[in-house]
Amino acid sequence: MPRLFIEQLTTPGQNIEGVFLVAEKDLRTTKKGAFFISAKMRDRTGELPAVMWDATQALFAAIPQGGYALVKGRLGEYGGGFQITIEAMRPAKENEVHLEEFLAVGPGNPEEQLARLKKLLDSIERPALRALVAAIWADEALVRDLKRAPAAEKLHHAYLGGLLEHTLGVAETCEAMVKCYPKLDRDLLLLGAFWHDLGKTRELAYAQAFGYTDAGKLVGHLVQGVLMLDGKIAAVRASGTDFPEELANVLRHLILAHHGTHEFGSPKLPMTAEAFTLNHVDNLDAKLHAFFRDVAADADPVRRWTGFNKMFGGSLYKGFEEAVEEKEKELEGGL
Amino acid sequence: MPRLFIEQLTTPGQNIEGVFLVAEKDLRTTKKGAFFISAKMRDRTGELPAVMWDATQALFAAIPQGGYALVKGRLGEYGGGFQITIEAMRPAKENEVHLEEFLAVGPGNPEEQLARLKKLLDSIERPALRALVAAIWADEALVRDLKRAPAAEKLHHAYLGGLLEHTLGVAETCEAMVKCYPKLDRDLLLLGAFWHDLGKTRELAYAQAFGYTDAGKLVGHLVQGVLMLDGKIAAVRASGTDFPEELANVLRHLILAHHGTHEFGSPKLPMTAEAFTLNHVDNLDAKLHAFFRDVAADADPVRRWTGFNKMFGGSLYKGFEEAVEEKEKELEGGL
Amino acid sequence: MPRLFIEQLTTPGQNIEGVFLVAEKDLRTTKKGAFFISAKMRDRTGELPAVMWDATQALFAAIPQGGYALVKGRLGEYGGGFQITIEAMRPAKENEVHLEEFLAVGPGNPEEQLARLKKLLDSIERPALRALVAAIWADEALVRDLKRAPAAEKLHHAYLGGLLEHTLGVAETCEAMVKCYPKLDRDLLLLGAFWHDLGKTRELAYAQAFGYTDAGKLVGHLVQGVLMLDGKIAAVRASGTDFPEELANVLRHLILAHHGTHEFGSPKLPMTAEAFTLNHVDNLDAKLHAFFRDVAADADPVRRWTGFNKMFGGSLYKGFEEAVEEKEKELEGGL
Amino acid sequence: MPRLFIEQLTTPGQNIEGVFLVAEKDLRTTKKGAFFISAKMRDRTGELPAVMWDATQALFAAIPQGGYALVKGRLGEYGGGFQITIEAMRPAKENEVHLEEFLAVGPGNPEEQLARLKKLLDSIERPALRALVAAIWADEALVRDLKRAPAAEKLHHAYLGGLLEHTLGVAETCEAMVKCYPKLDRDLLLLGAFWHDLGKTRELAYAQAFGYTDAGKLVGHLVQGVLMLDGKIAAVRASGTDFPEELANVLRHLILAHHGTHEFGSPKLPMTAEAFTLNHVDNLDAKLHAFFRDVAADADPVRRWTGFNKMFGGSLYKGFEEAVEEKEKELEGGL
Amino acid sequence: MPRLFIEQLTTPGQNIEGVFLVAEKDLRTTKKGAFFISAKMRDRTGELPAVMWDATQALFAAIPQGGYALVKGRLGEYGGGFQITIEAMRPAKENEVHLEEFLAVGPGNPEEQLARLKKLLDSIERPALRALVAAIWADEALVRDLKRAPAAEKLHHAYLGGLLEHTLGVAETCEAMVKCYPKLDRDLLLLGAFWHDLGKTRELAYAQAFGYTDAGKLVGHLVQGVLMLDGKIAAVRASGTDFPEELANVLRHLILAHHGTHEFGSPKLPMTAEAFTLNHVDNLDAKLHAFFRDVAADADPVRRWTGFNKMFGGSLYKGFEEAVEEKEKELEGGL
Amino acid sequence: MPRLFIEQLTTPGQNIEGVFLVAEKDLRTTKKGAFFISAKMRDRTGELPAVMWDATQALFAAIPQGGYALVKGRLGEYGGGFQITIEAMRPAKENEVHLEEFLAVGPGNPEEQLARLKKLLDSIERPALRALVAAIWADEALVRDLKRAPAAEKLHHAYLGGLLEHTLGVAETCEAMVKCYPKLDRDLLLLGAFWHDLGKTRELAYAQAFGYTDAGKLVGHLVQGVLMLDGKIAAVRASGTDFPEELANVLRHLILAHHGTHEFGSPKLPMTAEAFTLNHVDNLDAKLHAFFRDVAADADPVRRWTGFNKMFGGSLYKGFEEAVEEKEKELEGGL
Repeated sequence: MPRLFIEQLTTPGQNIEGVFLVAEKDLRTTKKGAFFISAKMRDRTGELPAVMWDATQALFAAIPQGGYALVKGRLGEYGGGFQITIEAMRPAKENEVHLEEFLAVGPGNPEEQLARLKKLLDSIERPALRALVAAIWADEALVRDLKRAPAAEKLHHAYLGGLLEHTLGVAETCEAMVKCYPKLDRDLLLLGAFWHDLGKTRELAYAQAFGYTDAGKLVGHLVQGVLMLDGKIAAVRASGTDFPEELANVLRHLILAHHGTHEFGSPKLPMTAEAFTLNHVDNLDAKLHAFFRDVAADADPVRRWTGFNKMFGGSLYKGFEEAVEEKEKELEGGL
Repeated sequence: MPRLFIEQLTTPGQNIEGVFLVAEKDLRTTKKGAFFISAKMRDRTGELPAVMWDATQALFAAIPQGGYALVKGRLGEYGGGFQITIEAMRPAKENEVHLEEFLAVGPGNPEEQLARLKKLLDSIERPALRALVAAIWADEALVRDLKRAPAAEKLHHAYLGGLLEHTLGVAETCEAMVKCYPKLDRDLLLLGAFWHDLGKTRELAYAQAFGYTDAGKLVGHLVQGVLMLDGKIAAVRASGTDFPEELANVLRHLILAHHGTHEFGSPKLPMTAEAFTLNHVDNLDAKLHAFFRDVAADADPVRRWTGFNKMFGGSLYKGFEEAVEEKEKELEGGL
Repeated sequence: MPRLFIEQLTTPGQNIEGVFLVAEKDLRTTKKGAFFISAKMRDRTGELPAVMWDATQALFAAIPQGGYALVKGRLGEYGGGFQITIEAMRPAKENEVHLEEFLAVGPGNPEEQLARLKKLLDSIERPALRALVAAIWADEALVRDLKRAPAAEKLHHAYLGGLLEHTLGVAETCEAMVKCYPKLDRDLLLLGAFWHDLGKTRELAYAQAFGYTDAGKLVGHLVQGVLMLDGKIAAVRASGTDFPEELANVLRHLILAHHGTHEFGSPKLPMTAEAFTLNHVDNLDAKLHAFFRDVAADADPVRRWTGFNKMFGGSLYKGFEEAVEEKEKELEGGL
Repeated sequence: MPRLFIEQLTTPGQNIEGVFLVAEKDLRTTKKGAFFISAKMRDRTGELPAVMWDATQALFAAIPQGGYALVKGRLGEYGGGFQITIEAMRPAKENEVHLEEFLAVGPGNPEEQLARLKKLLDSIERPALRALVAAIWADEALVRDLKRAPAAEKLHHAYLGGLLEHTLGVAETCEAMVKCYPKLDRDLLLLGAFWHDLGKTRELAYAQAFGYTDAGKLVGHLVQGVLMLDGKIAAVRASGTDFPEELANVLRHLILAHHGTHEFGSPKLPMTAEAFTLNHVDNLDAKLHAFFRDVAADADPVRRWTGFNKMFGGSLYKGFEEAVEEKEKELEGGL
Repeated sequence: MPRLFIEQLTTPGQNIEGVFLVAEKDLRTTKKGAFFISAKMRDRTGELPAVMWDATQALFAAIPQGGYALVKGRLGEYGGGFQITIEAMRPAKENEVHLEEFLAVGPGNPEEQLARLKKLLDSIERPALRALVAAIWADEALVRDLKRAPAAEKLHHAYLGGLLEHTLGVAETCEAMVKCYPKLDRDLLLLGAFWHDLGKTRELAYAQAFGYTDAGKLVGHLVQGVLMLDGKIAAVRASGTDFPEELANVLRHLILAHHGTHEFGSPKLPMTAEAFTLNHVDNLDAKLHAFFRDVAADADPVRRWTGFNKMFGGSLYKGFEEAVEEKEKELEGGL
Repeated sequence: MPRLFIEQLTTPGQNIEGVFLVAEKDLRTTKKGAFFISAKMRDRTGELPAVMWDATQALFAAIPQGGYALVKGRLGEYGGGFQITIEAMRPAKENEVHLEEFLAVGPGNPEEQLARLKKLLDSIERPALRALVAAIWADEALVRDLKRAPAAEKLHHAYLGGLLEHTLGVAETCEAMVKCYPKLDRDLLLLGAFWHDLGKTRELAYAQAFGYTDAGKLVGHLVQGVLMLDGKIAAVRASGTDFPEELANVLRHLILAHHGTHEFGSPKLPMTAEAFTLNHVDNLDAKLHAFFRDVAADADPVRRWTGFNKMFGGSLYKGFEEAVEEKEKELEGGL
């Protein structure tokens, strides 16, 4: 039986057999005291609630939340929508899981983006920083994580490759800022742009579903980024290149201060011109990405405003009348 | 007697005769009930306290605060410093005042800056907005004010020509942002950059000393800017060019929302991508200007930090070791 | 078939044919990819969800959100309640819509309220301000809007005529305040009371359903009020009456500062005694209106507290024991 | 028919006859205008929605919210769950209500806890305070309330006996603090620990269901505690023992300042070392109780984090890997 | 030697002998280790620094801060101003102190104000509250304190009689509010107006100099007011008049909530219509008093703005041009 | 000439020759354009302003701020106090500086405190953590820094040895908390207590004068502490002891979250029971230390309140009447 994606499950009674990502699971008890599992199953095309009666604590413990399960059952209905009634379930084996069926993938070409980022960083001038950049490219695992990680669980660039796309966006905008404000230290700003969110490769889980790791919840990507930086600086020094401690502190500061205020989790306020600039550029890149995404996601062809948007604290203005009129014309043309 | 500037008043007993800007004035009474005037006198080179005994309420009222007075007296001492003991004083006549002796002047060339700004704005495409731009250049008084006004009383670009310099900085950085984020509406963003602080020509007093006008205190530059915009839109419409009301609202929004939050005095939060971008670019241009100014103003050649800086909430980091070392070398070379 | 109001739709299967206000509409897709419209239909007596299967994007675009549609269908059930299953729908023609069937109407008599407001304003003394008042009464469209607009979408006086009722309440309380505090400038305070919310005639949409206009979202009623004031001042000046600029600034300030703090959207804090007083009286009139409305809306005859009230941050105390006991007695009398 | 608890109601159609606590009640009208009552019925084992058709306003008024009703009906279904369909209902008589069937009871032994608390307080040294302590123990109603009251409606120690358990916890931790910081005034700190939440015996209703009294909503437990203190001080003075007014003020301050900030409802900030210490110890005891309760309540044996916890602003970390592994081992052992 | 007031001390070397209020005192040590006293001496006309060399700890302890001292010495100079060099000093005896020489006295007539307040309160209707009012007037000490106390140490009505003036202002404005909003409970609002600041008779010290008592700092006037209310309610009940507990709670709430927010020290937010109204009227009366006082205190006849005013967060607008012009004309007339 | 301490400089004209700590230095220019140095000189007994005329930029650069200078000059007077007029000055040589003349030293015995701390930490049970503790004691430089560093520049325990004293106080109070709340993980809490401020050995400069290092300003002691922890964990692992990553994360969290809120600079909120407890105990130890210090520093034997205290937001209550009376008796006894 070929795999049916969730968007293809539309007929009550359909047989279901396949691997799903277990987005949520809860062990509950019926009024009579029997255990049952309430879960949410996900693939790339959507999510459905699921229920398995006659479950055991041991089965529940075996099914990995945020991991994959092989599910047999059929499509049922509940509360006005569909749900999967699970008849049997076990953890999926590694060779049964095809990741491209499960994770959102960004629109960009990672190799092309990485090449642009490399070109920018390779133009850094100070020898110590050039050695640091070389140490980055030499670390294949790091480069692989950078290409793969999302930039956030939900807020912006929340797809595989999002971290690289956001990092490149910030770096290229920083390059533009250096041209507008030549007193900025280009070396430091570019390196800060590169490293500001690198800790997200450890803060976020994205091997299976997007979420936060324990390290992410307990330590966070700012300090994780500093720990990663210190690891690389140690390697540079071990290789015989001088790396002044003050330069290390200035780079740590760029990472720690990039959220701009204590309120947003930075333990230090930006006190260098580059840290201040990086904070603004990072915020602008993330927010503009989210702005254009949320405007594009609004399906209504005539209204000029989206619904209430939590990130911006109001409805977003989708655009000036003429643009909307063009959309309407296209639509009319299609009738 | 040639005019002595305040920085030249260094010998107690020196005779003083000349025009000063009356930065502050207070009418007080001695223990015995006689009136005396306590004032602060200013010229381009500094400020000194001044006192005039045996004053009258009428004389006090006649002397214009924020205006100019012809002062006769001599240099005295008080509280460990110098003060001017005024023997006679009257309002200065217009032909006695030479403004260049009193007001700080920015470092740029206004004509060159205006030309760059014009080039940017003249590339705007929509006909209604082109008509609006034409109406600006046709208003000689407005262009004169734009070239002359400071951008703030104290915070940033606080000198004659500062408003133009800041407006150009914001506009050029916005142009760079459009290249980084092509979904931004270039016409709107450039016009917003031009108009965001234009109300400062009415909010700030800068004919004589920098300060706030009554309109500035009661209404503020955001709403003044909107009133000025509405005046120009009325003129465009009167000339027969169609100017849609929605376009007007989007421009008003750019002006009103450019402070970004209610806390900083914007009656509306930015809800268009251009308003959000303008808020960040404006903030960045103003703060970077202040950052580099305050770092440059710090006279100590060896310390890496300025004193506590109120705008940034801490000491500013003056720069990386090597830069400071270069300065030291220059200094050593000079010994 | 006579029009059935929503409160009369109580039997599943009832045929429905009539005009409804389209309070919300969404275009969605079934699992199989077909479009359907999910909507909320409203009249004066209530609101029901509605669904139309087999819809098209063009039909969806044609139906005006916040406008009126002629609907044919029957009463169905969904999720434990009623919903309208729409069989056919088109935009209503102007002569098919009877507004009194759709919009909440305030309890007062607008003509009587307007007369009281006129009497107060006509007692203003300064010639410039008398000319301004005359210009108001001469503007029939303005007076019509004032009589018709609500004072808010939901918070207080949210019905046709609410703006006039609130404006009169504020003006009469201001008049009482002048008697308590004779140093207040009566002319300014009364004119401020009149104009403080006048921009709501442009901020709010109330021709069909209550909501915010584009101008309301982008500019807001404070600045809209100032623009309306400037229009009238220009007319007064054009008629030859002197209107000093400082007087205009003081009036603009009254409008801009009447929310009292930046946090509530005022770009200026109240810095005149009249602005400070107006802020308090406005707040008191709006909140007392809401307080008594919410207490009256609580149907339970015995509890002394309403449920949690968001505006006041807690449960409202409905009144002292004896009052509740009186209510109970009335009730017992009726058994 | 023996009483069935709510957790035993599992078969649609079951007959129901028994006393329930009326947790909520609302009088509503059907589309046709008839009254019906929608309610929530509760006992010690859970809560179910209930509905009674053909109700009257008089019956509604007679049924005590937060009190007990004798209910006849049967178990129905609604919205995917069970609900009680009430056929007849009247207020329960006092002898029909058995409180142990309705209220959560804390895990501790009140007599043993009271003895420990007494031992601590009886070691207080100053004569005036010893007289105050004696007056407490002599007040049987107060001691009974202290043993019975919960410490909060929901936040922490929300069960009968919770106030005593929390009071003892705070007092014993304060005793430990005195050993760590001997400059603290032990007499004052212990008495403050005893009295800090005593006003909750009047703020909270716990005779039938947990909730707030009118006095609790209008006055609050801080000021109620001060009024109770003043009553006892008056008694001590009346008995001839000197009780200095300053001592009274210092004790009042301990009660009024124990929430630590204005934001949390203290009218005074802690300005004595004992008030500052009491604020911290109270907070720690309440939060650690809630922390361990919420971690224990999480049923999932493998996840290391609870869901989002409002009191702490995030997910709680349930414990270090080895602890979780032990739990898993236990579980495996049971399979 | 007749008493010289501080405003008469204008000649260095003048002999001084008289009673002064000791506004501040500090015991300090010279570089050589000798004690000296640094103090501030005050009478009704002003304040001067004072110094006494060769002081002892015992003398320092004997001199009452906030009390009166008989001082012998002469007028010296220090730091550009005058100071009293004390040669001998001892605590003043009671018959040496004439209070009218030391405390600011309000402009009103307390007997006339009290009569107006009495007339308002005597019109209260509920018997329990009438008994409460009667108990107030029967308490001569309370009436005397009410007539004498200031309303604040510095903020507003900071003079003898200020509390009565403010209480009357609030009560009369509340009476006006009842006419504007007839649903308000007049009895409760008037009694709340009377009692809201009554605790200031215990919070503030005003027998000698204005300041805070220990009770004021530890407990505050809100809770002090409630304790005073409870004392009077106990007396009413003792006299046989029924005083329902709920009525007591509603009155306590009016006192406790009258600051309006936790931030300003209210332990409860206003949840009755009367409490909400009282909060606004109290704030308005206090702020308008301060506004007109600070505008009147500004000596400059031409400027339209005061200096920065901390209470209002900006410069106060002194009034419209014509008013200022009138002042100028008066002034010109006088020249 | 024997060294004169600053408290011995009491006679204008005294010759001065000795080493001083340069607490502040500024290079200024006279009216005539000559450089002069304005400085503050400090030793253990106090601080004096100093001025050196005819200075050069090179000399200014050579004198180390926060370091030591050999000064020749004499005692002058300025602005009503003493100042040092410097005639010659050069950086002090290492053998000329005796640190005990310059830095405040705590009251405790570091060896005894260290022994108590060791005893507590050596009772930790988990092998990985025992290895970590062993690695601490093996690091002589770390132990030396711990014994020597202050706990803060000014706020609390601001003297040599203060960090050890504060660390011990927190650890011992945590031990007491574990006894009160046995569910707390003793190993983690003790190790967190030990490490929470360890980064201050790098954040603060205390070799010469107390201040912040560059690393302190750019990175801060929270993240410095984590970097130090990671260094030691790497060493433990290198020695062959297993140290689970999750255990490392939990320890990092204890350090990063110990300020309790974002506002106070923690990048993570406490989400383990131990982190929450550590935050409260740390705060309590620091604040009680400051409370008792500031009360003890108040020299006035009779007043019950200190002046306004910024850390606590008000005047501190120095203690109950009887305590003050005892002090007075002692004083009287001494007269």
